[in-house]
Parts: sequence; C-alpha cells; structure tokens
Amino acid sequence: MDNPFLVEVTRGPLVESRHRGSVSVVDADGSTVLSIGDVDRRVFPRSAVKALQALPLLESGVADKYGLTDEEIALACASHSGEPEHVRVAQSMLAKAGQDVSCLECGAHWPMGEAANRALAAEGGAPSALHNNCSGKHAGFICLACDGGHDPKGYVSPNHPVQRMVREALEDATGACHTMENSGIDGCSIPTYAIPLPSLAFGFAKFGTGVGLSSEGKAAAERIRKAVAAHPFMVAGTGRFDTRLMETLRERAFVKVGAEGVYCAALPGLGYGIALKADDGNARAAEAIMAGLILRLLPLNDEERAAIGKMAQPVFRNWNGIEVGSLRLNPALLG
Amino acid sequence: MDNPFLVEVTRGPLVESRHRGSVSVVDADGSTVLSIGDVDRRVFPRSAVKALQALPLLESGVADKYGLTDEEIALACASHSGEPEHVRVAQSMLAKAGQDVSCLECGAHWPMGEAANRALAAEGGAPSALHNNCSGKHAGFICLACDGGHDPKGYVSPNHPVQRMVREALEDATGACHTMENSGIDGCSIPTYAIPLPSLAFGFAKFGTGVGLSSEGKAAAERIRKAVAAHPFMVAGTGRFDTRLMETLRERAFVKVGAEGVYCAALPGLGYGIALKADDGNARAAEAIMAGLILRLLPLNDEERAAIGKMAQPVFRNWNGIEVGSLRLNPALLG
Repeated sequence: MDNPFLVEVTRGPLVESRHRGSVSVVDADGSTVLSIGDVDRRVFPRSAVKALQALPLLESGVADKYGLTDEEIALACASHSGEPEHVRVAQSMLAKAGQDVSCLECGAHWPMGEAANRALAAEGGAPSALHNNCSGKHAGFICLACDGGHDPKGYVSPNHPVQRMVREALEDATGACHTMENSGIDGCSIPTYAIPLPSLAFGFAKFGTGVGLSSEGKAAAERIRKAVAAHPFMVAGTGRFDTRLMETLRERAFVKVGAEGVYCAALPGLGYGIALKADDGNARAAEAIMAGLILRLLPLNDEERAAIGKMAQPVFRNWNGIEVGSLRLNPALLG
Repeated sequence: MDNPFLVEVTRGPLVESRHRGSVSVVDADGSTVLSIGDVDRRVFPRSAVKALQALPLLESGVADKYGLTDEEIALACASHSGEPEHVRVAQSMLAKAGQDVSCLECGAHWPMGEAANRALAAEGGAPSALHNNCSGKHAGFICLACDGGHDPKGYVSPNHPVQRMVREALEDATGACHTMENSGIDGCSIPTYAIPLPSLAFGFAKFGTGVGLSSEGKAAAERIRKAVAAHPFMVAGTGRFDTRLMETLRERAFVKVGAEGVYCAALPGLGYGIALKADDGNARAAEAIMAGLILRLLPLNDEERAAIGKMAQPVFRNWNGIEVGSLRLNPALLG
C-alpha cells in the first residue's frame, strides 16, 4: 500500500518536494479515530516514546526518593538542544544518584541547538555526553539503576535491568511485543523497537488518560505530563517545535518528536493518542502533520488556531527574508 | 505516475525510512540512456546548475580579463562550506572586479561546514555574505556585471543584464524555456527555473562534451570542468560528497548537488549528462543515487569502485560508533 502525499513544499508557483506518510489516532479503548496510509508497517518510534520510557522512573518511586524536580522529570523525556540549562539539569539529576557525566553511555555530540553549539565553541568548550540530546533520559536511567542497587554500567544494553524495565513499560503501554526480532539500536545506544503506529497511538492515549494503566502508572503518566507542560523548554529548547507547541497548549497536548520523521502525542481532553511517520524520515513533514492533526482535532481559540496554523503550514523565506515558498498540508489531513 | 523507491534506510533488521525519486541520463545528442520514474515533472535545479550559470563568465572573456584563477572559477560553481579558503577566494574575486563584500546580494549565513561554523564562533566572528555557500557564484555575477559596464546593484533580479545572460545560457544548454511561469526565487535570491530532468541531463551532456555548444561555450565548459577537477575542495568543502567524489574521479566526472534532493552530473568520457531528484528533497538519498549511477555507468578500478560503493551504500554509526543501520539502493538502480 502506498502512503498518500501529506505534505507539499512549494517554490514560486510550483510544488518542489513532496512527503508521504501515515497517521494513526486511537482512543484509550483502542478504537481507531483516524487512520491514514499503511499503519500496519512497523515504525521505530525512536525518541518519540521517551515519556513512556520514563514511566518506570516515576512508577518505581525513584523520582520521589531522589527528589527529582519537575524540570528534571521533563528533561528525562527530552530530546534537548544542549543549551546550558539542559546541561545543568542533567548534571543535577546525575548528582542526585551520586553519579556524574562519566556514567553516561549515550555518547557525546555538539549541542543540537545552533546558538548553544556556537556558544560552546566560543567559550573554547568541547561537547560531552551532557550535551547529547538524550542526556536527561540517560540520567533518569542511571537514577533507576542506582536506586535498584544495580551497577549502572552497561545500562544501555537490552539485558540490563533498566532496559528490561523500560521494555516492559513500553509493552504494557502499547500492547505490542518488543523483541529482538523488531529491535534496532538507537542513536544513544539503547534498544528501539519497531511497532505499528496504532500500537504507539494506543500507548499515548493511555499515557494521556491513565485508562488501562496501573494506579502507579496512571500517577506516573500524570506527573510526567504536568512536569512537561510546566517546563516545555526542557523537552526540546529555544525555538523548537515541541517547546513552542506545548508553551501554547500546556496540559492540553503532550507532543514528542522522534528521529526519522516520527511524532507521537497525547490529547488528554479528548482521550486520543496520535502516532505518525513521514516515510522519508523528514522532520519538517512530521512537524507539519502533527500541527495539522492538532488543528483538526483539538478545540482551539482564534489565537491558538493562528499560532498552530503557522506551524502546520509555514511560509519559507530565504537568507534575505524574501518569501520563496511554503509548506502545504493535504487538505484531507485537515478534515 | 508514482516514482519508485530508490533508497531504503535500514535500522537493525528492518527498513526505517524510504526515498522515492526520478532519474534521467541523456547523451549529447539528446537520446535517453536511462529513465526512471516521472521525468516529465518540472524540477527546480537550484544549485545543481551553478556550472551552467557560470558559462557567461567564461564565454564573455571576463574571467580571462580579470585574471580569474582555476580556484576562483571552481568557486563560481560552488555551494561551499564557508571555510576560510572559500571566503578568501570569494574576496579575491570581488577585489578583481574592484568590489567587496558590500556588493554581494546573496544574504549572510553561518558557514555550512560545522567545523568552520564553530571556528568562526570561536574567534568571535559573525557570518557575512562571504560565508554564504553561493558567494563564489555571486562574485562571478559581479565580475560579469562590472566588466559589462553594468551597475552590479540588483544583479539578482531576473531583469538585470546578468540574470538575462545567465537565463540565456541555461536555455541554450538545456533547450528548455525559462520563463516567469516556471520560476521561483532561490535561497540566494536569484531566479531558479523548474524544467524536466531530461532537459537538465541534456544540458550536462553538452557541458561535458561541448557538443551542441558554440565554440566559446565549448571552451568555457572545458575550462570550468578542468578548474573544478583541479580544485574539488572549492566547489564544496571538507568531507563533502562533491569534493570526495571529484577528488577520486577528477575530470572523469563533474558532479554538483542542489538543494531539495537534486543532483546533476556530466560524465565526459561517456558523453552522458545525469539529472536526478529525490521526491522529498532529501540530500542523503540524492547523494546515494548519484554514487549508484556512477557505479553503474562509469568504468572504475577496484579501488574507485570500493570508495564510491561506500558513498552509494553507506553504513550508519551512532554517537558511540556502533553500527546501527545502512543505506541500500534499489538493485534496479545499479543495473
């Protein structure tokens, strides 16, 4: 089955590039609300499931025991831009577990945020694992390991107790099997498991409502959602899509990007979970589709509709600020 | 007509993302050598035609009159990384026309090259139009304007004599009409004209052989090809695909990337021109397809085949250097 064109990028009077994709919206009972394209194909969610991967940190009571703040909990779900505040909060999480940067196994990379990247270079710095966009998630894993009395060393391995807990949380939420047969290695070295979009969407419907989760799971999901809604800067960074969207919508929408064109979201008020994938892995397409789905599904006031409309169908300008084209969503997507 | 999948990106045992595209290979008589997908659709070539846009600079005798070096001629065809050598050469071109950076109308951006970007930040610098990846092309335009006695001001406008000369050169080479109806504005503010891939490929077959060009055009094309083959660093930069490929193949292949997944090439020994577009505008796909076509078409020794094979079907590693996946070309593309 060919996925439909969901996004067109125009230049002048013509379409320059096109993106296909698939979308699943599911409610907390597992019923399909919306399905576009081939949703049976397995998709690696990558970083889009970081909030689900953070559930054991909360469910286990470790977050409370270590006194993790809302900022720290938000950072545990982040693909952050490596800005100084992100680095500071990751360091603080590690310190609460009695650890430091040397314990992180995510690898080092220069900050994803351009300004942070250049600021680090300007001060003569070098990137560490704290700048890795996943450092908050990994700091959470280390808290989980240390509290459980496990040696954190090797916490990225599928056989480490931490990854077993994370895998169980993903299976519980999504109802999908997470096995070696559908696993790959993520950019930060932990396993990532490919599952169909409706399973991912179902997981986020449960995450957004608590329906079908244990009482600990429900409380954990609510705590994470509130922490992220209070600190949307922590899950992404300056100018980033997730940050801007949640600064606008706060607790009404939890959204999280993943690499290779994946996006997941929970719309708690409606009880919906959303999962989507741009076939080609393109982030501009995935972002626009997510904004379009929120425009379609969520009741919004005029100001919110205008703000999110610009994220769904942005105008592109060149280095001189001249309008050169735009991104257009397939009208069928907008309903 | 749906374009076929030409590229698969794998992670672990599964395909994670897929890219569709179209390809045209044409000889200097205009006969089709290879055609994949919908090649009738008009494609904005963007920076992939910079070498054709540089033809008037050479044909007019301006390059000789100003004593442009091979490095400067190569930079006139470049989408460079904004490294110090690129900046120096762009400045030198402008000086030969009695001008400086203030004359450039391409807009400023931070260097595309990551190391150059951070080095500029580290020295407390700010980006100028010289760092714009198109600054060499624009410096060439300014030389053309100044020698012709035209005010260079407004040289990016479709009605300026420079852009009229450039448009005529593109029409001569490709045989396709370049009108307002198929024009957009490029990132650097000059017009870009969408034409079918076979017309682009035809233009590059003529550029690579001189067949069908005037004697001045033939000499200009040869001078450009030799200049770029001698200085492949100038057309792109450290680690870039065009630079690496032409460092390996020198005068046997002229290749040039364009934004939004476009690639053009000339294979002078075979008399072929190549033009391709990844539907979604993705550069990794366009690069791999181009490398795959060169593997298919060009006689190569074992060492060259191995080097270009790695560019056609690279292995991807994460921040810890662990192999996480690979890029695979559609076997039908490799012939």
